[in-house]
Amino acid sequence: SSQLGQDYILRPLQLSDYRAGVLEVLKDLTTIGDISEERFTEQFEFLRARQGEYFIIVIEKAATGRVVGVGTLLVERKFIHECGLVGHIEDIAVAKSEQGKRLGIKIIGALDFIGQRAGCYKNILDCSPHNEQFYVKCGYSNAGFEMTKRF
Amino acid sequence: SSQLGQDYILRPLQLSDYRAGVLEVLKDLTTIGDISEERFTEQFEFLRARQGEYFIIVIEKAATGRVVGVGTLLVERKFIHECGLVGHIEDIAVAKSEQGKRLGIKIIGALDFIGQRAGCYKNILDCSPHNEQFYVKCGYSNAGFEMTKRF
Ligand SMILES: CC(=O)N[C@@H]1[C@@H](O)[C@H](O)[C@@H](COP(=O)(O)O)O[C@@H]1O
Ligand SMILES: CC(=O)N[C@@H]1[C@@H](O)[C@H](O)[C@@H](COP(=O)(O)O)O[C@@H]1O
Repeated sequence: SSQLGQDYILRPLQLSDYRAGVLEVLKDLTTIGDISEERFTEQFEFLRARQGEYFIIVIEKAATGRVVGVGTLLVERKFIHECGLVGHIEDIAVAKSEQGKRLGIKIIGALDFIGQRAGCYKNILDCSPHNEQFYVKCGYSNAGFEMTKRF
Repeated sequence: SSQLGQDYILRPLQLSDYRAGVLEVLKDLTTIGDISEERFTEQFEFLRARQGEYFIIVIEKAATGRVVGVGTLLVERKFIHECGLVGHIEDIAVAKSEQGKRLGIKIIGALDFIGQRAGCYKNILDCSPHNEQFYVKCGYSNAGFEMTKRF
């Protein structure tokens, strides 16, 4: 993408991203645990088969071929809003060494573009209060609380 | 379900719920718009085909056969948490005339049971600050903010 210059490539997740470090990037966000290449491949194929539902994008650093950013859009189908669609933005992460370069904003912008093109009436996401200002910069507004129950 | 007594039946959404008033119940939550029985049927079949992904339950009032409560659980598949599952609780509504009878808590309890049985490591939902206390009563805790962008 020209907006990213020539140093970074924004593209869909691909199988080889297991070796290009996508799970290491996600480790910044939360627990990943042990995921073998086989398990990754199985999950990748499952999500890929759900066309129009899961969109997972990465940013690759051209010089190294490493994944330095990742984000997911899950498109939910509802009855409300005339059988409307809602995009859920999930699992956004940028490698620590690449932060401050506006890569996060590029990921959100791409997922907004995908959500809008898919026909979603809105995109939503959950974040800690600490990250609110980043999402405000991305054009998002606070719409309420996230409530959680862990099993 | 015996927990509901004999006056109410908790069960999966079925096609005939279009005529039993499920969309009227959802109107309490937000905009529904104009949904024909054909469009409802199409959406119902689409969601039913996504086995293990969308669980939509209703509460029927035995005396009238009318739907008086509804709720959805969407099971998301992730890479984080060892290719973990997260349940999204969505579109919870109880008919105004039936509020104060703990039907909402029964719906959330059922969706928690489904989420846990499906293998989710947590259930999450978004709500207005005004509804926070209801979800605390259901065993949920505040985990942060919901951010939205409307298209
Ligand atoms: C916008 C964004 O990336 N939000 C993420 C969410 O997608 C992710 O699933 C969760 C994991 O947290 P957990 O490990 O505590 O479940 O963290 C954040 O809320
Ligand atoms: C727990 C619960 O039921 N939360 C609902 C959410 O599921 C629904 O999609 C949204 C619709 O709001 P909207 O019409 O403004 O998009 O309202 C609430 O946040």
